Formats: sequence, structure tokens, C-alpha cells
Amino acid sequence: MSDRPPLDALPDPMGLAFAEARAAAEAGEVPVGAVVMRGGAVLGLGRNRPRALRDPTAHAEMLAIRAACAALGQERLEGCDLYVTLEPCPMCAGAISHARIRRLYFAAHDPKGGGVEQGPRVFNQPTCHHAPEVYGGLREAEAAEMLRAFFRDRRA
Amino acid sequence: MSDRPPLDALPDPMGLAFAEARAAAEAGEVPVGAVVMRGGAVLGLGRNRPRALRDPTAHAEMLAIRAACAALGQERLEGCDLYVTLEPCPMCAGAISHARIRRLYFAAHDPKGGGVEQGPRVFNQPTCHHAPEVYGGLREAEAAEMLRAFFRDRRA
Repeated sequence: MSDRPPLDALPDPMGLAFAEARAAAEAGEVPVGAVVMRGGAVLGLGRNRPRALRDPTAHAEMLAIRAACAALGQERLEGCDLYVTLEPCPMCAGAISHARIRRLYFAAHDPKGGGVEQGPRVFNQPTCHHAPEVYGGLREAEAAEMLRAFFRDRRA
Repeated sequence: MSDRPPLDALPDPMGLAFAEARAAAEAGEVPVGAVVMRGGAVLGLGRNRPRALRDPTAHAEMLAIRAACAALGQERLEGCDLYVTLEPCPMCAGAISHARIRRLYFAAHDPKGGGVEQGPRVFNQPTCHHAPEVYGGLREAEAAEMLRAFFRDRRA
């Protein structure tokens, strides 16, 4: 994203992902945000933008991964970690594997569309060539409430 | 892609996908090609380009879907069909579902990395909100030989 912060040490990557998610909601997109980090440095930020970009692949994780790859000039993100406010869908889980992300931290579980701990469980398949370490459920209640509030407001 | 043919009726969509795959091989990329069609018109072409674009999400299907969405100015491809020379991986299967592709035609099965008829079987999960009709194995021997020749030449 264009408002990428300087490559300083940043104490709260999940907080950055939440800020991206809130910006998505303000733009009328389902609030999901993501950030790719390496050693305390932000390499890529992303927020959910399929409507704005008219691109069904423009999920927060995809945009953060693509931004980080562009920043590094390489197609793999070995040693990098991804923080995202919602459990990745199968598409994003596949991209995380292709990018060789080291650790995945996510906030809310997604029983309806998740691809990591339910449904296809992409990283648990014998055909998955790289699986990150997965840490789910960080600030889960806060992320779930953000999503609930977004859909409640849209129905109102 | 920039060399998109005119929006005329075209008799052989899978032939176009094979041409894209051969162009990928000539550029040193794993040969996979894809095309999005609607009613005889080409809406988007894609060839595998992760190395050239330094983007792990730049699979043929992703680029063809994104090109078709850009051509139509919309994030969904209802009534559109995707032809690809290799069984889609989980990432691409997820994108096909998000894009609401009507029918998926693929050539070679991919026992090592496929996400449609093996591994996560993305379209067969209860968490999959849209599954295309799937027709696999068209010109399978030709597609498999193209991939074998590519990897044989790289080892030589």
C-alpha cells in the first residue's frame, strides 16, 4: 500500500493489521487487514479491496504478500511472518504456502470460509509443499466484533 | 496479457491456453496457460509468470481471471468459463470460486500440487460458496508431455 510506514522496528504487527482492516471497513469493504513482517520491519501492508479494485483476488493477505515481494524484488518470503485479522481462505492459504511464509498469525477463526483450520485445511494436505507455523485466535473477540459490526451496519 | 486477440468467436479455447503455456516455457517459467471465455469471446489470457513478475501469486489462472475482471470492470465472472492446461492449485481454485467461474476445463491432472481432484479438493468442501462444473483431463497427454519436456530440459 502507498502508506507503508518506514522500515523501523514496530511493536505491534497485529495492531497494524487491525488498522488496515478498519480502513477497509471505512471504504465499504469487508474488514480484513494484513501485514508481512521480517525482523521487526514492515515489508508489506494489505487491506481487503475486491470491490474497489474489481478483483476477486484482492484479499488483504494477497495484497500484503504481493507488496512485500515487490519491496524485496523476489517471489519468496522466506523468514517473513504474516499477521492477518481473519483466518485465511483457501486462496490466501495457497498464496502463503507459495510465498514460503514462515509464521502465520491470525485473529478471528472463519468457520464459514476459512481454509486453514477448517474446510480444505490447505496446510495439512500431503500436496502442500510448504506449511507455515500457525498461531490462530490472537485478539479473536476484537476481530470477530469488528466483522459483526460491519455486517450489522450494512443490514441496518 | 497485451497480445489479447480480438473479441471474435474462437473455436479452440484450450488451444489458446496451450499457446500461453508454450510462451511461458520459452520465458523459462513452468508451462501453464489459461484463458477466460464467455460465449465464444476471449475475456482474459494468462501464462505462468511468478519468476518474471517476482510474484508467487502470478499463476496463469490468476492472471487470466484478473485480466477478465479488468476487461469487464467487475469482480465476478458469472457465466464465464476458464480453460487451463494444468489442474489448478488450491490458491487458483479459491480464486476460481471467488470469481464465480461457471465451468472449469483443465488438461493435465496434478497429483503433486492440484487442489481440485486431490489434496484439499477445494470445491468439494462445505465451506466452498461457489463451485464450478469441472471437466478435467482434456488433451491430458499433450499437457503432461509439455511439462515433462520442460523439466527434462531444465535438468539437462
